[in-house]
Amino acid sequence: MKIENIDVSSYPHSEKIYIDGKLFPIRVAMRKINLYPTVKIVNGERIEKPNDPVVVYDTSGPYTDPNIEIDINKGLPRIREAWTEERCDTEVQPDITSEYGKARRADKNLDAIRFPVTHKPRKAKDGHRVTQMHYARKGIITPEMEYVAIRENLNNEKLGIKTYITPEFVRDEVAAGRAIIAANINHPEAEPMVIGRAFSVKLNTNIGNSALSSGIEEEVAKAVWSCYWGGDTLMDLSTGDNIHETREWIIRNCPVPMGTVPIYQALEKVNGKVKDLTWEIYKDTLIEQCEQGVDYFTIHAGVLKEHAALVGERLTGCVSRGGSIMTQWCVEHNEESFLYTHFDEICEILNKYDVAVSLGDGMRPGSIHDANDRAQFLELEVLGELTMKAWQHDVQVLIEGPGHVPMNKIAENMNKQLKSCHEAPFYTLGPLTTDIAPGYDHITSAIGAAIIGNLGTAMICYVTPKEHLSLPNLEDVRAGVIAYKIAAHAADLAKGFPGAQVRDDAMSKARFEFRWKDQFNLSLDPEKAKSYYLESLKNDPDVDNRFCTMCGPNFCAMRITQSITGKCGE
Amino acid sequence: MKIENIDVSSYPHSEKIYIDGKLFPIRVAMRKINLYPTVKIVNGERIEKPNDPVVVYDTSGPYTDPNIEIDINKGLPRIREAWTEERCDTEVQPDITSEYGKARRADKNLDAIRFPVTHKPRKAKDGHRVTQMHYARKGIITPEMEYVAIRENLNNEKLGIKTYITPEFVRDEVAAGRAIIAANINHPEAEPMVIGRAFSVKLNTNIGNSALSSGIEEEVAKAVWSCYWGGDTLMDLSTGDNIHETREWIIRNCPVPMGTVPIYQALEKVNGKVKDLTWEIYKDTLIEQCEQGVDYFTIHAGVLKEHAALVGERLTGCVSRGGSIMTQWCVEHNEESFLYTHFDEICEILNKYDVAVSLGDGMRPGSIHDANDRAQFLELEVLGELTMKAWQHDVQVLIEGPGHVPMNKIAENMNKQLKSCHEAPFYTLGPLTTDIAPGYDHITSAIGAAIIGNLGTAMICYVTPKEHLSLPNLEDVRAGVIAYKIAAHAADLAKGFPGAQVRDDAMSKARFEFRWKDQFNLSLDPEKAKSYYLESLKNDPDVDNRFCTMCGPNFCAMRITQSITGKCGE
Repeated sequence: MKIENIDVSSYPHSEKIYIDGKLFPIRVAMRKINLYPTVKIVNGERIEKPNDPVVVYDTSGPYTDPNIEIDINKGLPRIREAWTEERCDTEVQPDITSEYGKARRADKNLDAIRFPVTHKPRKAKDGHRVTQMHYARKGIITPEMEYVAIRENLNNEKLGIKTYITPEFVRDEVAAGRAIIAANINHPEAEPMVIGRAFSVKLNTNIGNSALSSGIEEEVAKAVWSCYWGGDTLMDLSTGDNIHETREWIIRNCPVPMGTVPIYQALEKVNGKVKDLTWEIYKDTLIEQCEQGVDYFTIHAGVLKEHAALVGERLTGCVSRGGSIMTQWCVEHNEESFLYTHFDEICEILNKYDVAVSLGDGMRPGSIHDANDRAQFLELEVLGELTMKAWQHDVQVLIEGPGHVPMNKIAENMNKQLKSCHEAPFYTLGPLTTDIAPGYDHITSAIGAAIIGNLGTAMICYVTPKEHLSLPNLEDVRAGVIAYKIAAHAADLAKGFPGAQVRDDAMSKARFEFRWKDQFNLSLDPEKAKSYYLESLKNDPDVDNRFCTMCGPNFCAMRITQSITGKCGE
Repeated sequence: MKIENIDVSSYPHSEKIYIDGKLFPIRVAMRKINLYPTVKIVNGERIEKPNDPVVVYDTSGPYTDPNIEIDINKGLPRIREAWTEERCDTEVQPDITSEYGKARRADKNLDAIRFPVTHKPRKAKDGHRVTQMHYARKGIITPEMEYVAIRENLNNEKLGIKTYITPEFVRDEVAAGRAIIAANINHPEAEPMVIGRAFSVKLNTNIGNSALSSGIEEEVAKAVWSCYWGGDTLMDLSTGDNIHETREWIIRNCPVPMGTVPIYQALEKVNGKVKDLTWEIYKDTLIEQCEQGVDYFTIHAGVLKEHAALVGERLTGCVSRGGSIMTQWCVEHNEESFLYTHFDEICEILNKYDVAVSLGDGMRPGSIHDANDRAQFLELEVLGELTMKAWQHDVQVLIEGPGHVPMNKIAENMNKQLKSCHEAPFYTLGPLTTDIAPGYDHITSAIGAAIIGNLGTAMICYVTPKEHLSLPNLEDVRAGVIAYKIAAHAADLAKGFPGAQVRDDAMSKARFEFRWKDQFNLSLDPEKAKSYYLESLKNDPDVDNRFCTMCGPNFCAMRITQSITGKCGE
């Protein structure tokens, strides 16, 4: 199998660089964008003044490192394997243990689509917890913590900003539950990253097939593509065929943490019959996925039997798949949700692999009308209770949030989440700020995501232009990721996140000095910026025109300014 | 000449409707979107329940009225001509009076591109002021005021909301300067609309050729296209050839108020030599455009000689074309700006035609770095002073605002504007919330526009994906308008603007009930929504599938909810 039709091997005029750890033998990957010099013509003489390169956060993984050979049939280098081993609190299991995993492996018909390399799963030794939260609470700094500390401190040294994101700071945030490092010991290919409101705002992308579309190759391509454009984490929401095998391909080739919603697969296992779902089937699914390396599970354990009645009060009912499945299960069995009643047991599974729990918002509003209603906020209280419980087991927690929320109700959501859920990181889908723009919901929701990111949401889940209409293709993934990079970066700027403005300033300086190539290279989507420029100018961008087609040569405000101020004028 | 390649003759499943005035014989155009019934199958029987149509604000003008014959060689019906005549305070001039206008008319070479119909210009009788502000201050309610009052009260009656936007309320807001109705007596084709923070948030689009691109036909098409997608006003920023003739074509076919920046054309008249600009040339340009029917002028009268020194402190200097031209003029002449020194005279011209002044922000920040700096806020103080002056002449005022502003600095901009400029309506370009996404600046700026709209900005000026890179084509205009309709509507929802949520609720109900066609028809871009849906479903949308391709048939959360709650279930 190979990835066709997409080129993720490099960014223009950029280099992959690595910053060495001081505590651990780790190498933190970053991207350095090299800039062209500022050119000034003085008395006919050309004077060049160099511009500092700009270092940016890099989610693309080994794909953009020319020194690493990529073969998706082998998977990515397993950088974290040695780190885990050295902690001596885990052991490689002789075999996979989930019933379903074994059954799939025994099925010869699946050989053709199976990932070619087998890795035996690793698990905590008996009596051990192996979560980053566990270590943090013990006062231990892990290589993962140092990795993310370095990763968050872009450009600070250059700016003379005191580095406050130290490994110790990361440890303290993780220990307090205000941040998580989602890092299953069975996904050693992932580069550590941190999700918390003291850090840069992260973005999650969703991929996955449905019964109607999409094969393994396409999903792997989407995953790699998402990382290339800037996705910090990735959820595989597959509900179609061969979920198990598709997931293995994605995880082995995924340089960022990957999440799932295990209830989807559990439901596939009972042929879509909600009533037939059992704790045993669900538990087996958790173990299956823990062993594969899923880094975080969305678990809708906050949807309780008593909430079912509230759904009827809404305009759009329950729009969460997991939430509606569990609501239906509760109604049909007239029993409390097994996710809620077995939550301690779930946590005891998760802390053996360091899988984080992302507490799903089964009652998220699916329309402006239903925003901030009783069903939503009641569930949030339950999520707060479950957060405390997860923390007792040293399990790292994310809290999922809406959804559809008008701008005036966003702050209330954020504040209520912080209070109800004890400052566990908030992870929101958008929110969409209006319902009336299907086809453009990456925009309706980027508005809400930027606002809630600024207010303290740690991770925003992207929405593509196809939301509400169909599944995204590669171009939609790109459009969604860029819209959310914009929202996340705008939030970082507004939060005053150290170093965030360096890229903006470099872009604006390049703009003022008509360094067109630098403008393209510094942008979130260099290819698109360049193509738009060339489209109407029909010129070689190597010729640094001292104007753009917006105003034409006679009316360029910035050129006039230059001539007035003498800054890089001619 | 005709408009090719675009179809602006109708919206799907919609009707043009007219609401009659109570005070005046006016007919206010609106669009009614008809919905399909909700279908429920009970015991095998199909039960249909009708859904109320949704009435939406309609900027498309006569183009979408099947009863009006459109011929762009004749121009649109002159609906406001009689209203003006009946006030008996204007007279039709025997001839145009600007020197430039006469020279162009005498040039036989221009016959081929000239608009075929000649209308003699109308002007206030001596000693009269004919602005809406003048009437309002006298306590007079005009047909224009009743028109906009009706236009702003969508769906209120249906909702049982007390109509607070009465003609009297409009009059009081206009009298106080908190709102404007830009309505040159020489642009009777335009349907009246109001800009003020007590009303729905409006959006302006920019079109216009530059020396590098675009002909008359293309610009007229862009104008009509912009109105079709929802542009409330339109600025013609042409700087290329045949500005005068292009403008005539646009105005005669433009159902919304049109603005210009007269200094651009003045500069063309002196072959781009800033030093050669004079008050006389500028004044002749104002009169030329007043007589053609321009509804508002951007005038950078707040850029003073003393501000020039501040430009050098900035990362991106002065990015306003008008601002940089006037700065250069001040520096080269070592004199105060003639726009500032002749401001009273300007106002005395404008109040003869009812052209509003949009006080340009020549010092708007062109980068995150320069946001909210001294240059920007000093100019804002001057704009406040000029506002008071314009109001003394009964001239209606808009205040233009930035630009590039990080989210955390937006509220300060808004508050400072309200205070410095005595609550004159704010009209902002975006603002862009980051500099790093050329190719996506409709999104970076829609975020800022939604936020500042919510805080009280009356009109937001769109930004297209091509901003900073090149001039927009038709597709870019559409992308820009839709992004800004989203921002404006999100702001209306957040402001709690009466009736705004009706469309969202209708959309969400249609979504919950799987009425796909209604979802398309209710959306801001029905064509795109439908095409995305069909793209992957490969199904006939006439078959109302009870699921979408996002989740597939087995996992539809809303269908599950329906089966639980019995709402429109099967």
